[in-house]
Amino acid sequence: MRAVVRRNKQLVCDEIGELEPAEGQVLVKTLACGICGSDLHALHHMEHMIDLSRRAGGIDNGFDPAADTVFGHEFCAEILDHGPGSAKAMKAGTRVVSVPMTLTPAGGVELLGFSNNLPGGFCERMLLSEAMVLAVPNGLSTEAAAMTEPMAVGAHAVAKAKLEPKSVALVVGCGPVGLAVIAALKANGHGPVIAADFSPRRRAAAEKLGADIVVDPAQESPHDRWEGLGVPRSRAAQNMMRMMGNSFAQPVVFECVGLPGVLQALIEAAPAGAQIVVAGVCMETDRIEPSIAITKEIELTFVFGYSPEEFAMTLRQLSEGVIDVSGLVTGKVGLEGVAGAFTALGDPEAHVKILVTPNG
Amino acid sequence: MRAVVRRNKQLVCDEIGELEPAEGQVLVKTLACGICGSDLHALHHMEHMIDLSRRAGGIDNGFDPAADTVFGHEFCAEILDHGPGSAKAMKAGTRVVSVPMTLTPAGGVELLGFSNNLPGGFCERMLLSEAMVLAVPNGLSTEAAAMTEPMAVGAHAVAKAKLEPKSVALVVGCGPVGLAVIAALKANGHGPVIAADFSPRRRAAAEKLGADIVVDPAQESPHDRWEGLGVPRSRAAQNMMRMMGNSFAQPVVFECVGLPGVLQALIEAAPAGAQIVVAGVCMETDRIEPSIAITKEIELTFVFGYSPEEFAMTLRQLSEGVIDVSGLVTGKVGLEGVAGAFTALGDPEAHVKILVTPNG
Repeated sequence: MRAVVRRNKQLVCDEIGELEPAEGQVLVKTLACGICGSDLHALHHMEHMIDLSRRAGGIDNGFDPAADTVFGHEFCAEILDHGPGSAKAMKAGTRVVSVPMTLTPAGGVELLGFSNNLPGGFCERMLLSEAMVLAVPNGLSTEAAAMTEPMAVGAHAVAKAKLEPKSVALVVGCGPVGLAVIAALKANGHGPVIAADFSPRRRAAAEKLGADIVVDPAQESPHDRWEGLGVPRSRAAQNMMRMMGNSFAQPVVFECVGLPGVLQALIEAAPAGAQIVVAGVCMETDRIEPSIAITKEIELTFVFGYSPEEFAMTLRQLSEGVIDVSGLVTGKVGLEGVAGAFTALGDPEAHVKILVTPNG
Repeated sequence: MRAVVRRNKQLVCDEIGELEPAEGQVLVKTLACGICGSDLHALHHMEHMIDLSRRAGGIDNGFDPAADTVFGHEFCAEILDHGPGSAKAMKAGTRVVSVPMTLTPAGGVELLGFSNNLPGGFCERMLLSEAMVLAVPNGLSTEAAAMTEPMAVGAHAVAKAKLEPKSVALVVGCGPVGLAVIAALKANGHGPVIAADFSPRRRAAAEKLGADIVVDPAQESPHDRWEGLGVPRSRAAQNMMRMMGNSFAQPVVFECVGLPGVLQALIEAAPAGAQIVVAGVCMETDRIEPSIAITKEIELTFVFGYSPEEFAMTLRQLSEGVIDVSGLVTGKVGLEGVAGAFTALGDPEAHVKILVTPNG
């Protein structure tokens, strides 16, 4: 079958071996699979990613960055066949999504999209775990269902934030991660939400997802908005309000850029006492001034991934229209278009999310 | 009156003008005043400290690092006289402590120990705010009362930690900040507490304050203790325990060293999901690997100072014997000995806390 294979740090279309579902697995036809920022990074920097992952105590499952890999972990697929012994609760033809992990008969776990052994979604077919697939509710488009995975990242970041009814949230960076955070904030009834991005296209997407205030940082600092929303920025002003018996809205900042320097800029610009939820994945060494973070009593909450429950909740919110991702998919390509799409995604103005449709 | 003055980045004994208590102020005789790590830093790096403080949005009260300053903010003193209009609720002769802030008749705040206008505790007399002084309970020694301020820093750090009944705490660095954290943890019934320091003297102090496990990092990593105390280190092991329906002790690390590199070492070595309470004040730019903190979902909680309530609680705990600081004061000097004491404190093996007794 046809797949886009990462080989020698390039993406090539090639034939790979057919898949046979083992016990507990289902063979699926890939209907759509999004390209993630981590795919862009992994294309060129897989060795570094693996080194960082090992230092983080990740599972060392012998992944070899020099061997072939088929990316793609944001997918919607259709069941074709079941492994031996299945009760076939979901019939062939059922559209499904899944967290991108497949259990193997040997008791291992393959991370779909970052595995040498099983292909991810940039491929005609995949093997998923029967126990983990979720049926796509009728009425939810394949396109929107494929957004479950990236949107679940926002659900998790918001769950980790210490949001109170009076909290004010600032989302810095409106790429796919920031947009997922905005959607999750609004789906959970939080507000006001300030969103900031240099790209007009991304600002428009933020507005469409419900951001209450959308700011172009080239024109004005989003931090100029805190006071107007009832959040004093300095510790002295906050102490004064407390002394006068007044409470104030708690500030929560979501860092969704993931580039060096952003964290320190936020530590300096955010209100004293702010929680900064770090959802943007900065793969480089970063510099901070701890003494400023200390003086301001900043909290840095680093977040990653999502739970199966958050994934399922996101699918439900998509299907019920609580989260509306229409307009976020700005391009679709077949397998032969994937390499070009990787290049196109380097320009934040050109696209939000590109889906790969391996079967046309 | 006699004072130790910071002048041209040196400490000199000199005569300074007598003080006159204004309305709401009391004139006190300084009985004892501890030397803090921040004093050591400020002697040579005041300009940098002020720059960082301004970037942190601190009050810009026109402090001039080139002008004379009398350090000292960890004091116990005796009331000599009251400003005009006082009800004199505390009689002359009463021993008192106070948060090191004095309100001025003009409505300003002088940070004692970091002010051009009022002297701190390395001086025969000071002006305190009558509304903020707390009487030292009978039976509590002047020496122990002077430890209220540094020990309150520990009370605040512990209050900011997300400690649960099953939490395991690791205190990295057993200088005055780390020891204050250990004391506050034990005063609040938390445990087990692991303490780590290269210095035998500081390890002995940690043990005396109640640390349950005391480790020399030159001999063994304190992080080798987590598993034995019921804390799985890797996310995979934690997920496995959760899947099996088992809860586990939440890990909380207190960073009390304040040197570059320590934060990243802890991000890498701490268990996944750990909260790192950053109480050690690193005055230099530091480097971190955000992607590792993200993968492990680390929380960095930067803490600073204490509230008036935490200060008062610490005084109470000292007076009730809940916190026993005997043995922490390893030296006493008169004003003429302060410069030498600053040098001596550079060696962690030589001292824990040196008190200045300006009146002999």
